[in-house]
Amino acid sequence: MTDPWQECMDHCVEIAKQAGKVIREALQGDIAVMHKSSQVDLVTETDQRVERLIISSIKAKFPTHSFIAEESVAAGAPSILTDDPTWIIDPIDGTTNFVHGFPFVSVSIGFTVKKEIEFGVVYSCIEDKMYTAHKGKGAFCNGLPIKVSGQEDLSCCLVLTEVAFKKDQQHLDSMMANLRSVLTIPVHGIRSPGSAAINMCLVASGAADAYYHLGIHCWDMAGGTAVLTEAGGVIVDISGGPFDLMSRRLIAASSAAVAERLASHIVDFHVGRDDAHGSEKN
Amino acid sequence: MTDPWQECMDHCVEIAKQAGKVIREALQGDIAVMHKSSQVDLVTETDQRVERLIISSIKAKFPTHSFIAEESVAAGAPSILTDDPTWIIDPIDGTTNFVHGFPFVSVSIGFTVKKEIEFGVVYSCIEDKMYTAHKGKGAFCNGLPIKVSGQEDLSCCLVLTEVAFKKDQQHLDSMMANLRSVLTIPVHGIRSPGSAAINMCLVASGAADAYYHLGIHCWDMAGGTAVLTEAGGVIVDISGGPFDLMSRRLIAASSAAVAERLASHIVDFHVGRDDAHGSEKN
Repeated sequence: MTDPWQECMDHCVEIAKQAGKVIREALQGDIAVMHKSSQVDLVTETDQRVERLIISSIKAKFPTHSFIAEESVAAGAPSILTDDPTWIIDPIDGTTNFVHGFPFVSVSIGFTVKKEIEFGVVYSCIEDKMYTAHKGKGAFCNGLPIKVSGQEDLSCCLVLTEVAFKKDQQHLDSMMANLRSVLTIPVHGIRSPGSAAINMCLVASGAADAYYHLGIHCWDMAGGTAVLTEAGGVIVDISGGPFDLMSRRLIAASSAAVAERLASHIVDFHVGRDDAHGSEKN
Repeated sequence: MTDPWQECMDHCVEIAKQAGKVIREALQGDIAVMHKSSQVDLVTETDQRVERLIISSIKAKFPTHSFIAEESVAAGAPSILTDDPTWIIDPIDGTTNFVHGFPFVSVSIGFTVKKEIEFGVVYSCIEDKMYTAHKGKGAFCNGLPIKVSGQEDLSCCLVLTEVAFKKDQQHLDSMMANLRSVLTIPVHGIRSPGSAAINMCLVASGAADAYYHLGIHCWDMAGGTAVLTEAGGVIVDISGGPFDLMSRRLIAASSAAVAERLASHIVDFHVGRDDAHGSEKN
Protein backbone atom coordinates (compact mmCIF):
# COMPACT_ATOMS: atom_id res chain seq x y z
CA MET A 1 0.00 0.00 0.00
CA THR A 2 1.36 3.41 -0.87
CA ASP A 3 1.70 5.85 1.98
CA PRO A 4 -1.02 8.52 1.66
CA TRP A 5 1.24 11.13 3.26
CA GLN A 6 4.50 10.51 1.38
CA GLU A 7 3.71 13.22 -1.16
CA CYS A 8 3.17 15.68 1.71
CA MET A 9 6.48 14.73 3.26
CA ASP A 10 8.38 15.06 -0.03
CA HIS A 11 6.90 18.51 -0.48
CA CYS A 12 7.78 19.38 3.12
CA VAL A 13 11.47 18.58 2.61
CA GLU A 14 11.49 20.65 -0.58
CA ILE A 15 9.87 23.69 1.01
CA ALA A 16 12.10 23.45 4.11
CA LYS A 17 15.13 23.51 1.81
CA GLN A 18 13.80 26.59 0.01
CA ALA A 19 12.97 28.31 3.31
CA GLY A 20 16.47 27.58 4.61
CA LYS A 21 17.97 29.17 1.53
CA VAL A 22 15.94 32.35 2.13
CA ILE A 23 17.14 32.38 5.76
CA ARG A 24 20.78 31.93 4.78
CA GLU A 25 20.51 34.71 2.21
CA ALA A 26 18.93 37.00 4.78
CA LEU A 27 21.85 36.32 7.12
CA GLN A 28 24.19 37.68 4.46
CA GLY A 29 22.23 40.91 4.27
CA ASP A 30 20.99 43.30 6.89
CA ILE A 31 18.35 41.89 9.20
CA ALA A 32 15.52 44.32 9.76
CA VAL A 33 14.59 43.66 13.34
CA MET A 34 11.34 44.74 14.90
CA HIS A 35 9.88 44.11 18.31
CA LYS A 36 7.06 41.68 19.18
CA SER A 37 6.42 41.82 22.91
CA SER A 38 9.84 42.45 24.40
CA GLN A 39 13.43 43.02 23.48
CA VAL A 40 14.24 39.36 24.18
CA ASP A 41 11.41 38.10 21.96
CA LEU A 42 12.68 39.17 18.61
CA VAL A 43 10.97 38.58 15.38
CA THR A 44 12.16 39.63 12.01
CA GLU A 45 10.70 40.38 8.65
CA THR A 46 12.36 37.22 7.41
CA ASP A 47 10.44 35.15 9.97
CA GLN A 48 7.13 36.34 8.55
CA ARG A 49 8.31 36.13 4.95
CA VAL A 50 9.49 32.54 5.39
CA GLU A 51 6.19 31.54 7.03
CA ARG A 52 4.19 33.04 4.13
CA LEU A 53 6.44 31.21 1.67
CA ILE A 54 5.92 27.86 3.40
CA ILE A 55 2.17 28.20 3.94
CA SER A 56 1.37 29.48 0.45
CA SER A 57 3.35 26.68 -1.14
CA ILE A 58 1.61 24.01 0.96
CA LYS A 59 -1.85 25.58 0.48
CA ALA A 60 -1.40 25.56 -3.29
CA LYS A 61 -0.74 21.82 -3.23
CA PHE A 62 -2.95 20.71 -0.33
CA PRO A 63 -5.77 23.29 -0.12
CA THR A 64 -7.87 21.42 2.46
CA HIS A 65 -5.15 21.06 5.10
CA SER A 66 -4.98 23.03 8.33
CA PHE A 67 -2.12 25.06 9.79
CA ILE A 68 -0.73 26.10 13.14
CA ALA A 69 2.19 28.42 12.53
CA GLU A 70 4.12 30.70 14.87
CA GLU A 71 3.73 34.04 13.13
CA SER A 72 0.07 33.42 12.19
CA VAL A 73 -0.73 32.62 15.83
CA ALA A 74 1.15 35.75 16.93
CA ALA A 75 -1.10 37.64 14.52
CA GLY A 76 -4.25 36.13 16.08
CA ALA A 77 -4.84 32.82 14.24
CA PRO A 78 -6.17 29.96 16.40
CA SER A 79 -3.79 27.40 17.82
CA ILE A 80 -6.10 24.42 18.23
CA LEU A 81 -5.08 20.95 17.13
CA THR A 82 -7.90 19.11 15.30
CA ASP A 83 -8.19 15.72 13.57
CA ASP A 84 -7.53 17.40 10.20
CA PRO A 85 -4.25 16.90 8.44
CA THR A 86 -2.35 19.78 10.05
CA TRP A 87 0.96 21.43 9.31
CA ILE A 88 2.64 22.81 12.45
CA ILE A 89 5.27 25.31 11.39
CA ASP A 90 8.04 27.32 12.95
CA PRO A 91 9.52 29.26 10.04
CA ILE A 92 12.65 30.20 12.01
CA ASP A 93 13.27 28.25 15.19
CA GLY A 94 16.02 30.07 17.04
CA THR A 95 15.04 33.62 16.07
CA THR A 96 17.48 35.15 18.55
CA ASN A 97 20.26 33.01 17.07
CA PHE A 98 19.16 34.13 13.62
CA VAL A 99 19.31 37.80 14.55
CA HIS A 100 22.85 37.34 15.87
CA GLY A 101 24.09 34.87 13.26
CA PHE A 102 24.64 32.22 15.94
CA PRO A 103 24.88 28.95 13.99
CA PHE A 104 21.80 27.06 15.28
CA VAL A 105 18.82 28.23 13.23
CA SER A 106 16.20 25.90 11.80
CA VAL A 107 13.02 25.55 9.81
CA SER A 108 10.75 23.17 11.74
CA ILE A 109 7.67 21.53 10.27
CA GLY A 110 5.59 18.74 11.80
CA PHE A 111 2.53 17.14 10.21
CA THR A 112 -0.28 15.62 12.24
CA VAL A 113 -3.27 13.49 11.27
CA LYS A 114 -5.94 12.80 13.88
CA LYS A 115 -3.74 14.72 16.35
CA GLU A 116 -0.88 12.22 15.89
CA ILE A 117 2.48 13.18 14.42
CA GLU A 118 2.82 11.57 10.97
CA PHE A 119 6.15 13.05 9.92
CA GLY A 120 8.58 15.83 10.82
CA VAL A 121 11.27 17.84 9.09
CA VAL A 122 13.85 20.07 10.79
CA TYR A 123 16.32 21.86 8.56
CA SER A 124 19.28 23.31 10.45
CA CYS A 125 20.02 25.72 7.67
CA ILE A 126 23.36 27.24 8.71
CA GLU A 127 24.84 23.81 9.39
CA ASP A 128 23.01 22.52 6.25
CA LYS A 129 21.63 19.50 8.10
CA MET A 130 18.25 18.21 6.95
CA TYR A 131 16.63 16.02 9.62
CA THR A 132 13.65 13.98 8.43
CA ALA A 133 11.43 11.31 9.96
CA HIS A 134 8.26 9.55 8.83
CA LYS A 135 6.25 7.41 11.25
CA GLY A 136 7.60 3.85 11.32
CA LYS A 137 10.35 4.57 8.79
CA GLY A 138 13.25 5.80 10.95
CA ALA A 139 15.00 9.15 11.30
CA PHE A 140 17.63 10.60 9.01
CA CYS A 141 20.10 13.47 8.76
CA ASN A 142 20.97 14.37 5.16
CA GLY A 143 19.66 10.96 4.17
CA LEU A 144 21.79 8.96 6.62
CA PRO A 145 20.06 7.09 9.46
CA ILE A 146 20.47 8.57 12.94
CA LYS A 147 19.76 7.18 16.37
CA VAL A 148 19.90 8.34 19.97
CA SER A 149 22.92 7.56 22.17
CA GLY A 150 20.89 5.04 24.15
CA GLN A 151 22.45 6.41 27.34
CA GLU A 152 20.51 5.16 30.38
CA ASP A 153 22.50 6.80 33.19
CA LEU A 154 21.47 10.42 33.72
CA SER A 155 24.76 11.23 35.48
CA CYS A 156 26.60 10.47 32.20
CA CYS A 157 24.34 12.73 30.12
CA LEU A 158 24.98 15.91 28.22
CA VAL A 159 21.76 17.84 28.87
CA LEU A 160 20.27 20.63 26.76
CA THR A 161 17.90 23.30 27.97
CA GLU A 162 16.98 26.93 27.42
CA VAL A 163 18.54 29.50 29.74
CA ALA A 164 16.25 32.50 29.35
CA PHE A 165 14.54 35.33 31.18
CA LYS A 166 11.01 36.17 29.97
CA LYS A 167 10.41 39.06 32.40
CA ASP A 168 8.54 36.75 34.76
CA GLN A 169 10.27 36.46 38.13
CA GLN A 170 8.56 33.17 39.07
CA HIS A 171 9.50 31.61 35.76
CA LEU A 172 13.10 32.76 36.31
CA ASP A 173 13.21 31.37 39.87
CA SER A 174 11.91 27.99 38.73
CA MET A 175 14.19 27.88 35.69
CA MET A 176 17.22 28.63 37.90
CA ALA A 177 16.15 26.06 40.51
CA ASN A 178 15.79 23.42 37.80
CA LEU A 179 19.16 24.29 36.34
CA ARG A 180 20.82 23.90 39.75
CA SER A 181 18.96 20.68 40.41
CA VAL A 182 20.09 19.14 37.10
CA LEU A 183 23.67 20.44 37.36
CA THR A 184 24.16 18.93 40.80
CA ILE A 185 22.88 15.45 39.89
CA PRO A 186 25.61 15.90 38.48
CA VAL A 187 25.40 15.52 34.72
CA HIS A 188 28.33 15.71 32.29
CA GLY A 189 27.33 19.18 31.21
CA ILE A 190 24.57 21.60 30.28
CA ARG A 191 24.38 23.22 26.86
CA SER A 192 21.94 25.84 25.62
CA PRO A 193 22.06 25.96 21.81
CA GLY A 194 18.98 28.18 21.53
CA SER A 195 16.85 26.26 18.99
CA ALA A 196 14.33 23.80 20.44
CA ALA A 197 13.98 21.89 17.16
CA ILE A 198 17.76 21.52 16.79
CA ASN A 199 18.00 20.49 20.46
CA MET A 200 15.62 17.62 19.74
CA CYS A 201 17.64 16.64 16.67
CA LEU A 202 20.90 16.76 18.67
CA VAL A 203 19.39 14.25 21.10
CA ALA A 204 18.02 12.24 18.16
CA SER A 205 21.48 11.98 16.61
CA GLY A 206 23.24 11.11 19.89
CA ALA A 207 25.17 14.41 20.16
CA ALA A 208 23.36 15.06 23.45
CA ASP A 209 21.39 12.73 25.71
CA ALA A 210 18.48 14.77 27.04
CA TYR A 211 16.64 18.03 26.63
CA TYR A 212 14.07 19.63 28.90
CA HIS A 213 12.06 22.79 28.44
CA LEU A 214 9.07 24.51 30.04
CA GLY A 215 7.51 27.32 28.02
CA ILE A 216 8.14 25.86 24.57
CA HIS A 217 5.42 25.94 21.85
CA CYS A 218 3.90 23.21 19.68
CA TRP A 219 5.57 24.64 16.55
CA ASP A 220 8.97 24.35 18.28
CA MET A 221 8.34 20.67 19.04
CA ALA A 222 6.24 19.15 16.22
CA GLY A 223 9.01 18.51 13.67
CA GLY A 224 11.54 17.37 16.26
CA THR A 225 9.05 15.04 17.94
CA ALA A 226 8.94 12.85 14.83
CA VAL A 227 12.73 12.93 14.42
CA LEU A 228 13.43 12.06 18.05
CA THR A 229 10.84 9.30 18.28
CA GLU A 230 11.90 7.66 15.03
CA ALA A 231 15.55 7.83 16.18
CA GLY A 232 14.61 5.67 19.16
CA GLY A 233 14.25 8.50 21.66
CA VAL A 234 11.60 9.04 24.29
CA ILE A 235 9.41 12.12 24.76
CA VAL A 236 7.45 12.66 27.94
CA ASP A 237 5.81 15.50 29.80
CA ILE A 238 8.00 17.39 32.25
CA SER A 239 6.16 15.48 35.01
CA GLY A 240 7.22 12.16 33.49
CA GLY A 241 3.66 11.50 32.29
CA PRO A 242 2.48 11.23 28.66
CA PHE A 243 3.67 13.91 26.24
CA ASP A 244 1.10 16.45 25.08
CA LEU A 245 2.06 18.53 22.03
CA MET A 246 -0.03 21.51 23.16
CA SER A 247 1.20 21.53 26.78
CA ARG A 248 4.28 23.74 26.25
CA ARG A 249 6.43 21.27 28.23
CA LEU A 250 8.71 18.42 27.30
CA ILE A 251 11.51 16.09 28.21
CA ALA A 252 13.22 14.50 25.21
CA ALA A 253 15.68 11.77 26.08
CA SER A 254 17.89 8.98 24.83
CA SER A 255 16.02 6.42 26.95
CA ALA A 256 12.99 5.99 29.20
CA ALA A 257 15.33 5.66 32.21
CA VAL A 258 16.91 9.06 31.55
CA ALA A 259 13.54 10.71 30.87
CA GLU A 260 12.07 9.35 34.08
CA ARG A 261 15.00 10.30 36.29
CA LEU A 262 15.27 13.77 34.74
CA ALA A 263 11.54 14.33 35.40
CA SER A 264 12.12 13.60 39.09
CA HIS A 265 14.65 16.48 39.26
CA ILE A 266 12.52 19.14 37.59
CA VAL A 267 10.02 21.33 39.37
CA ASP A 268 6.95 22.21 37.40
CA PHE A 269 5.78 25.79 36.94
CA HIS A 270 2.82 27.28 35.13
CA VAL A 271 3.40 28.02 31.47
CA GLY A 272 -0.15 27.84 30.10
CA ARG A 273 -1.19 25.82 27.02
CA ASP A 274 -0.94 26.57 23.32
CA ASP A 275 -4.64 25.71 22.89
CA ALA A 276 -5.88 27.67 25.90
CA HIS A 277 -7.97 30.81 25.57
CA GLY A 278 -7.40 34.35 26.78
CA SER A 279 -5.64 34.71 30.10
CA GLU A 280 -5.06 30.95 30.48
CA LYS A 281 -2.74 31.24 27.53
CA ASN A 282 0.00 32.86 29.57
CA MET B 1 61.26 43.00 7.13
CA THR B 2 60.11 39.39 7.21
CA ASP B 3 58.11 38.35 10.22
CA PRO B 4 60.30 36.15 12.44
CA TRP B 5 57.27 34.17 13.60
CA GLN B 6 55.48 33.58 10.29
CA GLU B 7 57.09 30.17 9.89
CA CYS B 8 55.85 29.18 13.35
CA MET B 9 52.35 30.31 12.51
CA ASP B 10 52.30 28.43 9.20
CA HIS B 11 53.41 25.31 11.02
CA CYS B 12 50.77 25.91 13.68
CA VAL B 13 47.95 25.99 11.13
CA GLU B 14 49.28 22.82 9.54
CA ILE B 15 49.53 20.89 12.81
CA ALA B 16 46.09 22.13 13.98
CA LYS B 17 44.63 20.76 10.75
CA GLN B 18 46.31 17.39 11.30
CA ALA B 19 45.18 17.30 14.94
CA GLY B 20 41.61 18.09 13.89
CA LYS B 21 41.69 15.18 11.47
CA VAL B 22 42.75 12.81 14.24
CA ILE B 23 39.91 14.14 16.42
CA ARG B 24 37.32 13.70 13.68
CA GLU B 25 38.51 10.18 13.01
CA ALA B 26 38.31 9.34 16.72
CA LEU B 27 34.72 10.57 16.74
CA GLN B 28 33.89 7.98 14.11
CA GLY B 29 35.30 5.19 16.29
CA ASP B 30 34.83 4.27 19.89
CA ILE B 31 36.10 6.81 22.35
CA ALA B 32 38.01 5.17 25.20
CA VAL B 33 37.11 7.37 28.11
CA MET B 34 38.99 7.44 31.37
CA HIS B 35 38.60 9.62 34.42
CA LYS B 36 40.84 12.50 35.48
CA SER B 37 39.53 14.01 38.68
CA SER B 38 35.77 13.63 38.41
CA GLN B 39 33.06 12.31 36.16
CA VAL B 40 32.43 15.78 34.76
CA ASP B 41 36.11 16.32 33.99
CA LEU B 42 36.53 13.82 31.22
CA VAL B 43 39.70 13.23 29.38
CA THR B 44 40.25 10.75 26.64
CA GLU B 45 43.12 8.88 25.13
CA THR B 46 42.65 11.02 22.06
CA ASP B 47 43.26 14.17 24.10
CA GLN B 48 46.68 12.91 25.15
CA ARG B 49 47.48 11.47 21.75
CA VAL B 50 46.66 14.75 20.00
CA GLU B 51 48.79 16.72 22.47
CA ARG B 52 51.77 14.40 21.87
CA LEU B 53 51.28 14.78 18.12
CA ILE B 54 51.26 18.58 18.31
CA ILE B 55 54.18 18.93 20.73
CA SER B 56 56.45 16.43 18.99
CA SER B 57 55.84 18.08 15.63
CA ILE B 58 56.63 21.55 16.99
CA LYS B 59 59.66 20.35 18.99
CA ALA B 60 61.15 18.74 15.88
CA LYS B 61 60.99 22.07 14.06
CA PHE B 62 61.55 24.52 16.92
CA PRO B 63 63.59 22.63 19.53
CA THR B 64 64.34 25.62 21.78
CA HIS B 65 60.74 26.72 22.29
CA SER B 66 58.74 26.25 25.50
CA PHE B 67 55.32 24.69 26.02
CA ILE B 68 52.34 24.97 28.33
CA ALA B 69 49.86 22.27 27.39
CA GLU B 70 46.77 20.95 29.15
CA GLU B 71 47.60 17.27 29.39
CA SER B 72 51.29 17.88 30.22
CA VAL B 73 50.27 20.20 33.07
CA ALA B 74 47.76 17.60 34.28
CA ALA B 75 50.67 15.14 34.33
CA GLY B 76 52.80 17.51 36.45
CA ALA B 77 54.59 19.81 33.98
CA PRO B 78 54.99 23.44 35.11
CA SER B 79 52.51 26.06 33.95
CA ILE B 80 54.64 29.19 34.17
CA LEU B 81 54.71 31.76 31.39
CA THR B 82 58.25 33.01 30.65
CA ASP B 83 59.76 35.39 28.07
CA ASP B 84 60.66 32.40 25.86
CA PRO B 85 58.76 31.73 22.67
CA THR B 86 56.00 29.58 24.16
CA TRP B 87 53.31 27.40 22.61
CA ILE B 88 50.17 27.26 24.76
CA ILE B 89 48.13 24.26 23.69
CA ASP B 90 44.74 22.76 24.32
CA PRO B 91 44.69 19.62 22.18
CA ILE B 92 40.89 19.24 22.52
CA ASP B 93 39.01 22.25 23.83
CA GLY B 94 35.53 21.03 24.64
CA THR B 95 36.44 17.53 25.86
CA THR B 96 32.92 16.88 27.16
CA ASN B 97 31.52 17.89 23.77
CA PHE B 98 34.05 15.57 22.14
CA VAL B 99 33.02 12.62 24.31
CA HIS B 100 29.38 13.18 23.35
CA GLY B 101 29.91 14.19 19.73
CA PHE B 102 28.41 17.64 20.41
CA PRO B 103 29.53 19.74 17.44
CA PHE B 104 31.76 22.34 19.18
CA VAL B 105 35.21 20.80 19.57
CA SER B 106 38.45 22.63 18.82
CA VAL B 107 42.22 22.48 18.75
CA SER B 108 43.49 25.69 20.35
CA ILE B 109 47.07 26.93 20.08
CA GLY B 110 48.43 30.32 21.13
CA PHE B 111 52.02 31.46 20.76
CA THR B 112 53.62 34.01 23.08
CA VAL B 113 56.91 35.88 22.94
CA LYS B 114 58.00 37.91 25.98
CA LYS B 115 54.67 36.92 27.54
CA GLU B 116 52.71 38.65 24.75
CA ILE B 117 50.43 36.77 22.35
CA GLU B 118 52.05 36.77 18.90
CA PHE B 119 49.53 34.61 17.06
CA GLY B 120 46.67 32.20 17.70
CA VAL B 121 44.98 29.35 15.87
CA VAL B 122 41.66 27.75 16.81
CA TYR B 123 40.43 24.91 14.62
CA SER B 124 36.77 24.04 15.19
CA CYS B 125 37.24 20.62 13.69
CA ILE B 126 33.67 19.28 13.46
CA GLU B 127 32.46 22.51 11.82
CA ASP B 128 35.73 22.58 9.81
CA LYS B 129 36.35 26.24 10.66
CA MET B 130 39.98 27.33 10.93
CA TYR B 131 40.29 30.58 12.85
CA THR B 132 43.70 32.30 12.59
CA ALA B 133 45.16 35.60 13.75
CA HIS B 134 48.64 37.08 13.73
CA LYS B 135 49.41 40.24 15.69
CA GLY B 136 48.65 43.33 13.62
CA LYS B 137 47.45 41.35 10.61
CA GLY B 138 43.76 40.76 11.34
CA ALA B 139 41.69 37.69 12.11
CA PHE B 140 40.38 35.12 9.66
CA CYS B 141 38.05 32.14 9.42
CA ASN B 142 38.97 29.74 6.61
CA GLY B 143 40.99 32.57 5.11
CA LEU B 144 38.18 35.13 5.09
CA PRO B 145 38.47 38.20 7.34
CA ILE B 146 36.21 38.26 10.41
CA LYS B 147 35.28 41.01 12.80
CA VAL B 148 33.25 41.43 15.97
CA SER B 149 29.64 42.69 15.84
CA GLY B 150 30.70 46.02 17.31
CA GLN B 151 27.62 45.91 19.55
CA GLU B 152 27.93 48.53 22.32
CA ASP B 153 24.64 47.98 24.16
CA LEU B 154 24.84 45.04 26.58
CA SER B 155 21.05 44.65 26.61
CA CYS B 156 21.17 43.77 22.88
CA CYS B 157 23.88 41.15 23.35
CA LEU B 158 23.90 37.40 22.90
CA VAL B 159 26.14 36.31 25.78
CA LEU B 160 28.16 33.10 26.05
CA THR B 161 29.28 31.45 29.26
CA GLU B 162 29.94 28.06 30.79
CA VAL B 163 27.13 26.50 32.85
CA ALA B 164 28.94 23.90 34.92
CA PHE B 165 29.19 22.30 38.33
CA LYS B 166 32.73 21.46 39.49
CA LYS B 167 31.75 19.91 42.84
CA ASP B 168 32.45 23.20 44.63
CA GLN B 169 29.34 24.64 46.22
CA GLN B 170 30.70 28.19 46.45
CA HIS B 171 31.69 28.12 42.80
CA LEU B 172 28.19 26.91 41.91
CA ASP B 173 26.48 29.61 44.00
CA SER B 174 28.58 32.33 42.39
CA MET B 175 28.12 30.92 38.89
CA MET B 176 24.34 30.80 39.36
CA ALA B 177 24.27 34.33 40.85
CA ASN B 178 26.22 35.65 37.87
CA LEU B 179 23.92 33.87 35.43
CA ARG B 180 20.86 35.42 37.06
CA SER B 181 22.51 38.83 37.15
CA VAL B 182 23.35 38.73 33.44
CA LEU B 183 19.98 37.25 32.40
CA THR B 184 18.05 39.98 34.17
CA ILE B 185 19.99 42.88 32.66
CA PRO B 186 18.26 41.57 30.42
CA VAL B 187 20.36 40.40 27.48
CA HIS B 188 19.02 38.88 24.25
CA GLY B 189 20.04 35.40 25.36
CA ILE B 190 22.58 33.16 27.02
CA ARG B 191 24.26 30.32 25.15
CA SER B 192 26.68 27.71 26.51
CA PRO B 193 28.44 26.01 23.58
CA GLY B 194 30.99 24.25 25.81
CA SER B 195 34.28 25.19 24.12
CA ALA B 196 36.03 28.29 25.47
CA ALA B 197 38.17 28.71 22.36
CA ILE B 198 35.14 28.47 20.05
CA ASN B 199 33.23 30.88 22.30
CA MET B 200 35.98 33.45 21.76
CA CYS B 201 35.87 32.84 18.00
CA LEU B 202 32.05 33.16 17.95
CA VAL B 203 32.44 36.62 19.54
CA ALA B 204 35.32 37.37 17.13
CA SER B 205 33.13 36.57 14.12
CA GLY B 206 30.10 38.51 15.40
CA ALA B 207 27.91 35.41 16.02
CA ALA B 208 27.77 36.39 19.70
CA ASP B 209 28.61 39.66 21.44
CA ALA B 210 30.22 38.72 24.72
CA TYR B 211 31.64 35.79 26.68
CA TYR B 212 32.54 35.60 30.36
CA HIS B 213 34.13 32.77 32.30
CA LEU B 214 35.72 32.23 35.72
CA GLY B 215 37.74 29.04 36.09
CA ILE B 216 39.07 28.86 32.53
CA HIS B 217 42.74 27.97 31.85
CA CYS B 218 45.45 29.72 29.82
CA TRP B 219 45.38 26.95 27.21
CA ASP B 220 41.64 27.53 26.71
CA MET B 221 42.23 31.24 26.08
CA ALA B 222 45.60 31.70 24.34
CA GLY B 223 44.57 30.90 20.77
CA GLY B 224 41.23 32.70 21.02
CA THR B 225 42.81 35.79 22.57
CA ALA B 226 44.71 36.48 19.34
CA VAL B 227 41.63 35.81 17.18
CA LEU B 228 39.34 38.01 19.25
CA THR B 229 41.77 40.91 19.57
CA GLU B 230 42.64 40.92 15.89
CA ALA B 231 38.93 40.83 15.02
CA GLY B 232 38.49 44.12 16.87
CA GLY B 233 37.28 42.62 20.14
CA VAL B 234 38.16 43.54 23.68
CA ILE B 235 39.46 41.21 26.39
CA VAL B 236 39.52 42.27 30.01
CA ASP B 237 39.68 40.64 33.41
CA ILE B 238 36.38 39.70 34.99
CA SER B 239 36.81 42.77 37.23
CA GLY B 240 37.04 45.01 34.16
CA GLY B 241 40.79 45.52 34.74
CA PRO B 242 43.61 44.40 32.44
CA PHE B 243 43.45 40.85 31.11
CA ASP B 244 45.98 38.37 32.55
CA LEU B 245 46.41 35.13 30.60
CA MET B 246 47.33 33.16 33.73
CA SER B 247 44.46 34.49 35.89
CA ARG B 248 41.80 31.93 34.86
CA ARG B 249 39.24 34.72 34.28
CA LEU B 250 38.09 36.65 31.28
CA ILE B 251 35.49 38.81 29.62
CA ALA B 252 35.69 38.81 25.83
CA ALA B 253 33.45 41.34 24.15
CA SER B 254 32.48 43.07 20.96
CA SER B 255 33.34 46.49 22.44
CA ALA B 256 34.89 48.16 25.48
CA ALA B 257 31.44 49.43 26.49
CA VAL B 258 29.99 45.90 26.61
CA ALA B 259 33.04 44.51 28.43
CA GLU B 260 32.88 47.24 31.06
CA ARG B 261 29.16 46.96 31.68
CA LEU B 262 29.28 43.15 31.81
CA ALA B 263 32.10 43.35 34.38
CA SER B 264 29.87 45.47 36.62
CA HIS B 265 27.28 42.64 36.68
CA ILE B 266 29.63 39.79 37.54
CA VAL B 267 30.66 38.86 41.06
CA ASP B 268 34.18 37.59 41.44
CA PHE B 269 34.99 34.30 43.13
CA HIS B 270 38.27 32.56 43.84
CA VAL B 271 39.48 30.31 41.05
CA GLY B 272 43.26 30.33 41.69
CA ARG B 273 45.88 30.99 39.01
CA ASP B 274 47.42 28.76 36.39
CA ASP B 275 50.92 29.78 37.53
CA ALA B 276 50.29 29.38 41.27
CA HIS B 277 51.87 26.61 43.30
CA GLY B 278 50.39 23.81 45.38
CA SER B 279 47.17 24.65 47.21
CA GLU B 280 46.94 28.16 45.71
CA LYS B 281 46.40 26.46 42.37
CA ASN B 282 42.85 25.47 43.21
